[in-house]
Amino acid sequence: MLAQLQRNFDRLRQNRLFETFVIVVILLSAVLIGAKSFDINPAYLSILNTLDWGITFIFLIEIGIRFFGEQNKRQFFKSGWNVFDTLIVMVSLIPVQDSELALLGRMIRIFRVLRMVSIIPELRILMNSLLRALPQMGYVCLLMFILFYIFAALGTSFFESINPELWGHIGVSLLTLFRVMTFEDWTDVMYETMEVHAWSWAYYIAFIFLTAFAFLNMIIGIVVKVVEEEQNKERQAKQAATHGGKAEPDRYELQCQIAELKELIEAKLK
Amino acid sequence: MLAQLQRNFDRLRQNRLFETFVIVVILLSAVLIGAKSFDINPAYLSILNTLDWGITFIFLIEIGIRFFGEQNKRQFFKSGWNVFDTLIVMVSLIPVQDSELALLGRMIRIFRVLRMVSIIPELRILMNSLLRALPQMGYVCLLMFILFYIFAALGTSFFESINPELWGHIGVSLLTLFRVMTFEDWTDVMYETMEVHAWSWAYYIAFIFLTAFAFLNMIIGIVVKVVEEEQNKERQAKQAATHGGKAEPDRYELQCQIAELKELIEAKLK
Amino acid sequence: MLAQLQRNFDRLRQNRLFETFVIVVILLSAVLIGAKSFDINPAYLSILNTLDWGITFIFLIEIGIRFFGEQNKRQFFKSGWNVFDTLIVMVSLIPVQDSELALLGRMIRIFRVLRMVSIIPELRILMNSLLRALPQMGYVCLLMFILFYIFAALGTSFFESINPELWGHIGVSLLTLFRVMTFEDWTDVMYETMEVHAWSWAYYIAFIFLTAFAFLNMIIGIVVKVVEEEQNKERQAKQAATHGGKAEPDRYELQCQIAELKELIEAKLK
Amino acid sequence: MLAQLQRNFDRLRQNRLFETFVIVVILLSAVLIGAKSFDINPAYLSILNTLDWGITFIFLIEIGIRFFGEQNKRQFFKSGWNVFDTLIVMVSLIPVQDSELALLGRMIRIFRVLRMVSIIPELRILMNSLLRALPQMGYVCLLMFILFYIFAALGTSFFESINPELWGHIGVSLLTLFRVMTFEDWTDVMYETMEVHAWSWAYYIAFIFLTAFAFLNMIIGIVVKVVEEEQNKERQAKQAATHGGKAEPDRYELQCQIAELKELIEAKLK
Repeated sequence: MLAQLQRNFDRLRQNRLFETFVIVVILLSAVLIGAKSFDINPAYLSILNTLDWGITFIFLIEIGIRFFGEQNKRQFFKSGWNVFDTLIVMVSLIPVQDSELALLGRMIRIFRVLRMVSIIPELRILMNSLLRALPQMGYVCLLMFILFYIFAALGTSFFESINPELWGHIGVSLLTLFRVMTFEDWTDVMYETMEVHAWSWAYYIAFIFLTAFAFLNMIIGIVVKVVEEEQNKERQAKQAATHGGKAEPDRYELQCQIAELKELIEAKLK
Repeated sequence: MLAQLQRNFDRLRQNRLFETFVIVVILLSAVLIGAKSFDINPAYLSILNTLDWGITFIFLIEIGIRFFGEQNKRQFFKSGWNVFDTLIVMVSLIPVQDSELALLGRMIRIFRVLRMVSIIPELRILMNSLLRALPQMGYVCLLMFILFYIFAALGTSFFESINPELWGHIGVSLLTLFRVMTFEDWTDVMYETMEVHAWSWAYYIAFIFLTAFAFLNMIIGIVVKVVEEEQNKERQAKQAATHGGKAEPDRYELQCQIAELKELIEAKLK
Repeated sequence: MLAQLQRNFDRLRQNRLFETFVIVVILLSAVLIGAKSFDINPAYLSILNTLDWGITFIFLIEIGIRFFGEQNKRQFFKSGWNVFDTLIVMVSLIPVQDSELALLGRMIRIFRVLRMVSIIPELRILMNSLLRALPQMGYVCLLMFILFYIFAALGTSFFESINPELWGHIGVSLLTLFRVMTFEDWTDVMYETMEVHAWSWAYYIAFIFLTAFAFLNMIIGIVVKVVEEEQNKERQAKQAATHGGKAEPDRYELQCQIAELKELIEAKLK
Repeated sequence: MLAQLQRNFDRLRQNRLFETFVIVVILLSAVLIGAKSFDINPAYLSILNTLDWGITFIFLIEIGIRFFGEQNKRQFFKSGWNVFDTLIVMVSLIPVQDSELALLGRMIRIFRVLRMVSIIPELRILMNSLLRALPQMGYVCLLMFILFYIFAALGTSFFESINPELWGHIGVSLLTLFRVMTFEDWTDVMYETMEVHAWSWAYYIAFIFLTAFAFLNMIIGIVVKVVEEEQNKERQAKQAATHGGKAEPDRYELQCQIAELKELIEAKLK
């Protein structure tokens, strides 16, 4: 009988309607979060809170169905998305009155919107491809961080006395340089330091050029990688699409066979 | 006789001169809109208004010619551009005195400039290709909206009391985050919240990195799609360009035929 | 004897040293322009003026050598660069005392730096390729201008009374929208209009999205065009690189020949 | 015995653990630089200074090991990275008390972080590829500089009297134009000059369009170059991957061989 139930649950969780219902509930929870950010009548607030608990309850049941619908229970927690879903729902179950914990509770409710990604397959695929692209950028990011660190250390030792709020220690210097990289009022920063060190424009121009150059190379590197991968995929698709498992011969093999044929004719017709 | 008239109209609407004349009239209507935005002598204003009605009248006749020139009248309204043209001209026919409706009338006259797109074929093609590119960006836009929504909800719950004009409710928070994404005085927003929550720089840096990363991936995704499509088109063009409808054989087929030939020779010359 | 002189001049103008000398003189003229922008001692100023006339004189001689070195005098003025060089040098010969014309004279001297492009072949090639890329962007630019014009007309009719300096007539509205497109303090513009029309954020967001989208498509369009051209060039290079003018046969022709061979064998060995 | 020592050192410097240890020491030196930028207790400062000398000492030993581990001593200084490492370590050995030199000493200690690049092979490869990409941009950069120079000279002659801080001489004009290119409060600069010269918006729009256009072309040029290189590499890889050093025949050669075969058969079976 349990096996029967498990099969029913399994069918249910693969149901298109069930998925749509869950998406609607997640959307509702997102709307709730938005609604609470407005000043609302306390009378309505209690309704919102009730709705919130209702959503938590529905999520709990949904996770339960997914879990019991899984034949191999261990498999369930091997998927990162399942673990994420379970954690988010579990934590939002904890009743919080304490103001400190209330903030945490509110944040958890916000992150429930991320369940959208774990439910909609297309978004899950997109997210995975984003995560896979991360290591490609790794070394360029490291190089850029070294660049930032050196310029921040230089900036701190030169400009610390001019404006401690921008160049007080290496931390704020890094933040100031990030601001310069986004071109956000960077001339204000520059004109201030140029009053003391007239040469300091060179510092900013050098920094902007180096980061822009590194950034450009990162993008080009990614584009090249992507194009290469595309070509590899195509080549493999070509290889796989051949006749009866046998790979398509290259022109050299064709040449060899024609040569063989020639030898054969010559031998036979001597 | 009606059929004769229809054929004449059909010839007329495909006339290059007729098209050029309509473009000139649209340009004139654009110039009129621009001219009216300046402070002008009331004496001239009445001239402008007369011209405006003249343009509406010409547009009416032009749409009429297009409609009567169409053999299959139903086909006419199947094209979105025709419907758009007709609507724009119809609405600008309604005489408006009421100040509320006068604004609408003025707006409709502005949108008449869009008729440029419906008249010039190259622009129509470009517009269609733009519209076709939209769904490609769909899921990345959804992902970005989720990102925006979560950060806006977090921002509202943390920074609401600091500056209600920027973080008062989820609506203005979304607008503030859009502003941060465009790097528009984003440090002013950050420095303000850093005075209360010293850690809040991490919030902004995380947001900027995540949006930049998602945006980068969107662009790369589009480039890859475009390159793929190009390659597909080329492959199909190759397939189509072969002899007498027969597809070009691949090297495997050539190999088979050489092998056949060999067998034949061996059989004959035994 | 004239023919002898012409051949000598022709040899001279193709001389590497002569070219280098002219480049140095152009550089010197650029340095002069820069030097004059500083406050300088009147004593030195007269030296600079003398140098300036010297440069004009050298340019005159150089253009003369180029002209007389050309065998076919008419050919000379068919090159846009030659016309540009001659005009620039001629105009800077006119002695100017009048303050109005003095400004023109100064501007002409500035444009002499552009002669760098007409002298260095690599820059000339680059410039030509830039000019060739212009028409590709034509229709997208037209579409973007229509977009700008419509939004400017809408902006003028809605926001004219709020800030006439930004939205007074269609001209300044276009400038304001260009500013919004560069994200330059666009929120200042928005917050001002939002105080009167609370919905006006939608106007700005729509404008930013539409321009960004059109811009993105323009870039992708150019990349696709460039990639296509590359592939075409390669294909043509392949075609051209074949044996004795004969094009490389495709696999279909190979198949036909093998089939022919088979028929031949069957016919002979019946 | 010396040869034995050299071989030991050689083995040591290729040791993975040794490399990791050096990276950790470089990281520690980076952390030290960061720590010193904060206000710290003088008691701790002496500890930091001791650590600093310790790091210099370790670096000295490490460079020594690398040097003595190298069989061919001359080869050692042929690598730019080795020279850089040695210089950085040597200079940081010089004891500095003088305030002028102290600054230099501090800067040298900052640049020690760059040793990260010389130690980690992936970063060294990346850096080399960045440096190789530089000359590709050469001529476009020259063209852009000419553009900047002409606009700066024009700007100085027109706007000098309006705001000498922004347009005083060609140097600050270049800086102002760089600021305009980054869209940093460029409208402030424009509105100021528009009050005197109402037409000056055209100057800024022209400058922004020209630089954006040149920049776009630079990026496209690089992408095309990169794609071309990829295709070349692939073609060469194909060529190299053939059988026994012999290149793969093209279809024309196959056709020739089939024709030869035909002639042979015809000759034999006459």
